[in-house]
Amino acid sequence: MDGMRQKAIQDYYPDHLNQCYGCGGLNTHGLRIKSYWLGDRAVCTFIPQPYHMGPPGYVYGGLLASLIDCHGNATAVAAACQEAGREPDSEPLWRYLTATLHVEYLRPTPIEGPLELEGRVKEIKGRKVVVEVTVTVAGKICVKGKVISVLAPEKFLKLAP
Amino acid sequence: MDGMRQKAIQDYYPDHLNQCYGCGGLNTHGLRIKSYWLGDRAVCTFIPQPYHMGPPGYVYGGLLASLIDCHGNATAVAAACQEAGREPDSEPLWRYLTATLHVEYLRPTPIEGPLELEGRVKEIKGRKVVVEVTVTVAGKICVKGKVISVLAPEKFLKLAP
Repeated sequence: MDGMRQKAIQDYYPDHLNQCYGCGGLNTHGLRIKSYWLGDRAVCTFIPQPYHMGPPGYVYGGLLASLIDCHGNATAVAAACQEAGREPDSEPLWRYLTATLHVEYLRPTPIEGPLELEGRVKEIKGRKVVVEVTVTVAGKICVKGKVISVLAPEKFLKLAP
Repeated sequence: MDGMRQKAIQDYYPDHLNQCYGCGGLNTHGLRIKSYWLGDRAVCTFIPQPYHMGPPGYVYGGLLASLIDCHGNATAVAAACQEAGREPDSEPLWRYLTATLHVEYLRPTPIEGPLELEGRVKEIKGRKVVVEVTVTVAGKICVKGKVISVLAPEKFLKLAP
């Protein structure tokens, strides 16, 4: 896990799982977020584009939910692997899928950004990881999220439907 | 409100509030969803693009959260206006912003779609509307959402920050 300080969590994903609109490095239409594990939390910086607007001057709530979703699952991967003493790209792959996503919009999020995400694990229990994520702009927490991530079945990750 | 059977709820929004990434008709980068009010519920059909993928073959969870967010707020506008006996474009404008968004991913959502959204109002209380949204593909509910929408202050809608 030492390398995770330099390498994003998503950079451990194999190509066929690296297509996600939110965090897949190979999705040229997508957001391509990068989450970095710091040993006890994961961080991510995202600069919204002007067209990521919701109300005039503020970030679209769906984008914020999307960032929390992907960053939450990346946090779950890193934390679960650290707890198990395994590398994030070791076989069988551990990838997490969102079971539930809860987002609280505390205040409008300025479109200028940058958006600073921080994900912390609240609980790891069996196949389930509970992650709390905050989105901060200019020192103020604008959005809080909670992601319940579940370890994806191995066969789900190997095959398209 | 008679015209709402033909005209989408978003088509009542004035230009400066029609820039939203999720539902703004003027956002050429956005999803431009259209929600139609049927008197007791709002419906929306969305065809995902291949790049809206999350896990291989399935829709990205953040996109689903985004659709639920915008469709939920549109449902709130239509239902609140109907209850008050006013048109959705009458002054002062009634626009709803998301206070909280909760999404349950019940099963993976096939990328082929089409995604059929249905929004129903659970409660209207003061400035708050609680909307429940389902996302159905091929007759199966894949995702359930709950949006707590709050009436935006008038000054918030008039001015960029």
